[in-house]
Amino acid sequence: MGNEESGMNYRDNTYPFRQDSTFLYYFGLDVAGLAAVIDPESGAEILFGNELTMDQIIWTGPLPSLREMAAAAGITTVEPFDALPGWLKKAGALHTVHYLPPYRELNQMRLAEWFGIPVAQVPDKVSVPLIEAVVRQRAIKEAIEATAIEEAVSISVDMHHAAMKHVKPGMKEHELAAKVLEVAHAAGGRLSYNVICTIEGQVLHNHYYGNTIRNGDLVLLDAGAEQVMHYAGDLTRTFPAGGKFTNQQREVYDVVLNSLERAAGQLHPGKRFIDIHALACEALLQGLKEIGLFMGDPAEGVQEGAHTLFFQCGLGHMMGLDVHDMEDLGEQYVGYSPQLAKRKDFGWKYLRLGRELEAGYVLTVEPGIYIIPELIDRWKAENKLAGMINYPLLEKYRHFTGIRIENNYLITATGSRLFGKPLATTAAEVEAMVQTRY
Amino acid sequence: MGNEESGMNYRDNTYPFRQDSTFLYYFGLDVAGLAAVIDPESGAEILFGNELTMDQIIWTGPLPSLREMAAAAGITTVEPFDALPGWLKKAGALHTVHYLPPYRELNQMRLAEWFGIPVAQVPDKVSVPLIEAVVRQRAIKEAIEATAIEEAVSISVDMHHAAMKHVKPGMKEHELAAKVLEVAHAAGGRLSYNVICTIEGQVLHNHYYGNTIRNGDLVLLDAGAEQVMHYAGDLTRTFPAGGKFTNQQREVYDVVLNSLERAAGQLHPGKRFIDIHALACEALLQGLKEIGLFMGDPAEGVQEGAHTLFFQCGLGHMMGLDVHDMEDLGEQYVGYSPQLAKRKDFGWKYLRLGRELEAGYVLTVEPGIYIIPELIDRWKAENKLAGMINYPLLEKYRHFTGIRIENNYLITATGSRLFGKPLATTAAEVEAMVQTRY
Repeated sequence: MGNEESGMNYRDNTYPFRQDSTFLYYFGLDVAGLAAVIDPESGAEILFGNELTMDQIIWTGPLPSLREMAAAAGITTVEPFDALPGWLKKAGALHTVHYLPPYRELNQMRLAEWFGIPVAQVPDKVSVPLIEAVVRQRAIKEAIEATAIEEAVSISVDMHHAAMKHVKPGMKEHELAAKVLEVAHAAGGRLSYNVICTIEGQVLHNHYYGNTIRNGDLVLLDAGAEQVMHYAGDLTRTFPAGGKFTNQQREVYDVVLNSLERAAGQLHPGKRFIDIHALACEALLQGLKEIGLFMGDPAEGVQEGAHTLFFQCGLGHMMGLDVHDMEDLGEQYVGYSPQLAKRKDFGWKYLRLGRELEAGYVLTVEPGIYIIPELIDRWKAENKLAGMINYPLLEKYRHFTGIRIENNYLITATGSRLFGKPLATTAAEVEAMVQTRY
Repeated sequence: MGNEESGMNYRDNTYPFRQDSTFLYYFGLDVAGLAAVIDPESGAEILFGNELTMDQIIWTGPLPSLREMAAAAGITTVEPFDALPGWLKKAGALHTVHYLPPYRELNQMRLAEWFGIPVAQVPDKVSVPLIEAVVRQRAIKEAIEATAIEEAVSISVDMHHAAMKHVKPGMKEHELAAKVLEVAHAAGGRLSYNVICTIEGQVLHNHYYGNTIRNGDLVLLDAGAEQVMHYAGDLTRTFPAGGKFTNQQREVYDVVLNSLERAAGQLHPGKRFIDIHALACEALLQGLKEIGLFMGDPAEGVQEGAHTLFFQCGLGHMMGLDVHDMEDLGEQYVGYSPQLAKRKDFGWKYLRLGRELEAGYVLTVEPGIYIIPELIDRWKAENKLAGMINYPLLEKYRHFTGIRIENNYLITATGSRLFGKPLATTAAEVEAMVQTRY
């Protein structure tokens, strides 16, 4: 199933069109109103969609015909969209037709109608063999894909440098986010996800841009471009609005950066990402121990979940045509394996990738330290891990906010390769970039 | 029904949230996951939605509770979202419950489930009395709404001036569109619709930004901001990329501008907009006659539809919380009346607003001239209106592209008021602005 246009506040005022990523991967056709069938027995590929009418061409201008677009994608058979239900019926209905999980309601409604099943049952009847086959192909990036992702990452680098140079105390967050947006679009792409651009980096799901940025604030920018083929970049930097970290900020920054570097050093085919996550968490606790916020043995702290007070989420995820690659297909299939199920405890349950790495995987590494007052209060009230957490000292960090540093890597035969042109990363590099005002 | 988050390439990678406009109008609550009931008999207003859990607050940071938000909107009763179907059942089901047309599939699926009807029947059972009542209220803008719209229009003016100053031959369309986007977001808003930013202004539905802008090209920019309360602006200007119109471009520009000015001069309560549209079309033909492209009597030309070769769409539409205000409720109810049905012939059928104007209406006036080669070829092949159209001369305009000029007006007790801060409008003003490069 391809995607359709998606109405915003009425049907014809649409969000920017986004094709389904698996449809893009197999068919490359970036227009609405399509679906396609691959018949592995006969080898046939059929594209279902409607040609523009003469009346439509008045409004759209001359465009290549669907048949021409299909041919360019190597598909010779094109049928009208309305022929699809009949084709499915002829194919013998559900037991021989495999479909992927629909995440848009229109496709869910259509599948229900075509297969004559209740809408609510559509997700239950998705094809696990098809999901697994698609994941196997999409997880390993070909050279042309790696090049596309690197392009997206390099645009993302430009977005971050533009923000660092543009930030000025007194500015609103949305003024900074707007600059980031401009760079992505000026490069011919768009955002691969809604920008996080905030002085409250500890708020992990933050799409509010109304705060005024003040001298002394840390700005957390999590922003990535989607390039023209729709491959994604996904980078985070945290920088001091005034151009200089405080000592407290700098100490924590270096803890996060050390964790990133230790994790990145472990990227290698055959390594389980869940183990790299654990190592990154251990590195965070080791650093926090040196600051005095953590007491005890870091490895034991990770066992006990002490790190989840500071680092509640996962170390990284797959990247590709989706910024969380193939998340619609199910995290168990994408990030885990029959031998490795996702853990369900706090912290670990947000780790989207755990499985053994293979050459060709593309992923993020993104450790962070987030001081969430509500979480501290909850743990304190439960006296949780009181022997490991220095709660009195932590009070001095209550309004610290959050720091995350995120890079994107390709797993190679011999280790990994950092994607994108150079981006300010060390505290000194970041400070220098912020001080390079426009 | 409020709106939910809308997944882009998977469920959790959402488009920027956009609340339903009617929900915003009555309840002002700009968050997902809500629906509300107004019971005109008892006077009760009930908001259905779920409070954040403690787990969610870890990710979102502390937010006002739903109860607090509801109270700020004057609603005292808040129920969990899941209580809504039961409430509807108790209320006596469909014959006493009125709902508006759903334009998002999820809401359509929910209404089907709650009322126990097939999804396909949901649109048939919308409440016309409720639609009419909502249109009556929303069509007449209160002072606070007019202020909000004027703010959106003034941001839109900044977007246009930024584009005029930013354009440089050699630039890609998306580089210019990116600047427009930045200005909208830097002002704390966003776009009220996808920007049209093109050197092919004759392509009316144009969201392609891949052309290189060259000296001599006309750039048509149709772009408006949505301000923070979600009221829309909607402006169009057409400007010469090189800073100077050619004589041919300037002649046609002045024809369009004259049509705009004549139409704007007619805006007055009691005037039918369909008649103003006809007058604007007549002005276009009068101007084209002076150039030599039209032959004959302009009023007769409009009768015969000769103007639709050059101006295929409508003169304007209502504006408010939606850029095409209330388009989801149905154009017949919004733009027409029981006494005035929408015409179905080419050109006229795209006129969204025909009815008698009332003080408090906000609308666009947007005449244009679009030279569409495919349409000319079709008319020529049919020898259509050959006595009125100077086809040989028109060949010299085949690659002229298109010009539109669009302003936004409030209908007042005594006439109309142009919205927004001053925007370059005459050919000389536009040229001067483009020549004021950054």
